[in-house]
Amino acid sequence: MSARRPPEIPGPAPPAAAALPVGEGTAALPDWVESVEEMHPSDIADLVASLGSVSQQLEILRTMPTELASDTLAEMEEWEDRAELLSALGSRRGTALLQELADDDAADLLGEMEPDDRDRMLAALPTEDAVEIRDLLRYGEETAGGLMTTALVSVSTGSSAGDAIAEVRRQGREVEDFYAVFVVDDRNRLQGTVPLADLIVADPDEAVAVLVEPAVAVVHPDTDQEEVGRVMGRYNLVTVPVVGGGGVLLGHITFDDVIDVIEAETTEDILKLAGVSEEEELKAGWLESVRSRLPWLTLNLVTAGLAAGVILSFEDLISEIAFLAFLMPVVAALGGNTGTQALAVTIRRIAIGYEWRPSHFRVVGKEVLVGLLNGLVLGALFGVFAYFYQGDPRLGLVVLLAMWTNIIVAGFAGAMIPTLLNRLGADPAVASSVFVTTLTDLVGFVMVLSLATALLM
Amino acid sequence: MSARRPPEIPGPAPPAAAALPVGEGTAALPDWVESVEEMHPSDIADLVASLGSVSQQLEILRTMPTELASDTLAEMEEWEDRAELLSALGSRRGTALLQELADDDAADLLGEMEPDDRDRMLAALPTEDAVEIRDLLRYGEETAGGLMTTALVSVSTGSSAGDAIAEVRRQGREVEDFYAVFVVDDRNRLQGTVPLADLIVADPDEAVAVLVEPAVAVVHPDTDQEEVGRVMGRYNLVTVPVVGGGGVLLGHITFDDVIDVIEAETTEDILKLAGVSEEEELKAGWLESVRSRLPWLTLNLVTAGLAAGVILSFEDLISEIAFLAFLMPVVAALGGNTGTQALAVTIRRIAIGYEWRPSHFRVVGKEVLVGLLNGLVLGALFGVFAYFYQGDPRLGLVVLLAMWTNIIVAGFAGAMIPTLLNRLGADPAVASSVFVTTLTDLVGFVMVLSLATALLM
Repeated sequence: MSARRPPEIPGPAPPAAAALPVGEGTAALPDWVESVEEMHPSDIADLVASLGSVSQQLEILRTMPTELASDTLAEMEEWEDRAELLSALGSRRGTALLQELADDDAADLLGEMEPDDRDRMLAALPTEDAVEIRDLLRYGEETAGGLMTTALVSVSTGSSAGDAIAEVRRQGREVEDFYAVFVVDDRNRLQGTVPLADLIVADPDEAVAVLVEPAVAVVHPDTDQEEVGRVMGRYNLVTVPVVGGGGVLLGHITFDDVIDVIEAETTEDILKLAGVSEEEELKAGWLESVRSRLPWLTLNLVTAGLAAGVILSFEDLISEIAFLAFLMPVVAALGGNTGTQALAVTIRRIAIGYEWRPSHFRVVGKEVLVGLLNGLVLGALFGVFAYFYQGDPRLGLVVLLAMWTNIIVAGFAGAMIPTLLNRLGADPAVASSVFVTTLTDLVGFVMVLSLATALLM
Repeated sequence: MSARRPPEIPGPAPPAAAALPVGEGTAALPDWVESVEEMHPSDIADLVASLGSVSQQLEILRTMPTELASDTLAEMEEWEDRAELLSALGSRRGTALLQELADDDAADLLGEMEPDDRDRMLAALPTEDAVEIRDLLRYGEETAGGLMTTALVSVSTGSSAGDAIAEVRRQGREVEDFYAVFVVDDRNRLQGTVPLADLIVADPDEAVAVLVEPAVAVVHPDTDQEEVGRVMGRYNLVTVPVVGGGGVLLGHITFDDVIDVIEAETTEDILKLAGVSEEEELKAGWLESVRSRLPWLTLNLVTAGLAAGVILSFEDLISEIAFLAFLMPVVAALGGNTGTQALAVTIRRIAIGYEWRPSHFRVVGKEVLVGLLNGLVLGALFGVFAYFYQGDPRLGLVVLLAMWTNIIVAGFAGAMIPTLLNRLGADPAVASSVFVTTLTDLVGFVMVLSLATALLM
């Protein structure tokens, strides 16, 4: 650990890995390090992932010290095929690496393996480790149970600060990085925590029962990871305990897992809003991306076709006033953009966790008000343009009314649809945008065409 | 602190604040707590923010214990007008609250005040505190200097673990929550850190120089907060030191600040993608939202109008084949959706920090490939429909080619525009979506109309 070069931030960007000298028979290394051992596991993970050939990747993982290799695997992502790499390393090296990992990281890695490979790897592990990991594998991947580690430091509520420090010293050799000491009773039920800092600062004779603070929050093994992230962010927690039935302490989740969760959930939200499924990860190959995006685009083709289908009933009108073919997409586009604004604000409010505030549906009212005013201004601008361009005040009126209506509907739908989905327990980001833009297309086309029929014909 | 009820998550949702009993003369409290003192400052902050009247808000802040009131202010958001509340509390209560705060939180609060109010408040503070806060106020709000606290625990590189613990005990009484001990030389230059856990576990006679680990990363006071978040997330850091010229330790930034930064930057990205400016916060009133969104929508009106403007040159063609008025918005919509998918994936890649990977422009190539295949499938589907609906195979060909081209262009533009903006040092999210959808509208209209002219007339 101690030989790693601390990267200064901002520092010179590492050279593109494409320019890496690929040694013969040895692993490829960027020329700014003398050996992988100098690098941080996160950086080695990137390096390994960027290598083109699996044999080069395996070469690095085989030649690195065991602890560093296991840290590197822990820092790699599922879509960088780390589980396949672990399988390919063989069960001897593989289990050696797994044993170095924290139990939650080991369970994550094994969870990504093919069932056969996983069973083979588990069978090769010492029984105790295998049982621990099997326990963790029972929990859903995106739950608190799936995130937690059972490695923690706990002391009895009856001890003194001095005893507790001795106990921490004993247990601490087994546990990497800990920031709080959990206090439990004789049946392992959580009583609270003592920050490590308080324990050091305290008088050694002080009773732990005096120092203990009730946990600011606890989560259950089946709590959704998004909720875990929200709670830890909200209460600034460096670690949160996971308790089972009767308040028994099962494990804990630390801040670094939560930063990963927040990033993953955010990525998911942004991609879902754009209609990219969460299965398509950022590093997916192009064929995978086609497979994942095509269903969504096909759905879009159907909805866009249905919305525009209304135009087919007005072909005579359009033959007479071709100018309408210019108006319709503009009115529809402005509705779509207004809807997207309302949608983004609402989805973000929900993600950050305002949804229990008194403002459940107040935001819908606000978006309608915003639409009323924005729609009036934009409708008037475009209406005046249409009037001057075609010299017909009635056409200006058609544009004003169509644009105005569509923008109000867009604000309403953009705020209401995700709020309703959330209320119904569904993910507010899913499919919201296709609902909203289909609706604004439809309203835009219908308003232009029906108003034109009524006022111009 | 010790009387706070630990919220169980998931637990019963707190009742809507609208239903709060508003005491006469006393602050309003939800009926599920006996007094505010039982609540977590984050929850009190929400409660205060949800109260309708400023006098009720001030009432709560005046009657709460000083430490809890200052924690509450620290947990409130800028757009909840916390600086105005602090000013309204008057300089005696105001400075009492400020003195309880960590220096970074105090500086943030003062930074949000009107200059006159700020100067008055600073003048009322003890000189030492005022100097410290003035120092912090010099740094930009969104930089490492603006995030850091100068309150930290440091020991000399020459001491033993036992001496260090004694020193930590002494300094620790002044510093809330610390997770690492910084090691400095006699000129306060950072030598590295010792995790608190290691210090406790170590033999008291062991030299700190042996335990010290070089900092995994350091940041400078002017490092952008987004970069700080990226570094801490990447290397799983609970705290990162901020160093000035010569490596002198100035302060540090802890994980809780970074979770806030990641959330703020994410919100900014999502909203910007949707064309909501970062000035419009989630809690903005409706008139503020109108003012912030209208310029963007007006720009959109101009660009959508210009893109659709091409239709004006083809009025004769449309009068003859009104079916084209149906085709155009569908072809444009599918281009827009494809572009948005490519945009979201690319912007997210950049945000998470892949941009130094060898794949700078490789992602553009991937999106073009994806567009090639998706465009062919969707173009063929819609082309066949058009052929059967109108009975003209040439029309089917027009649709196929227009859709195909537009979707390829969309994939290219959606990936290329943010990549280029990022390369030029600009924010990749800004205005990307208006560029992309304007382009796909234009290409969609032009392709349908020009192919129709060439093949059908």
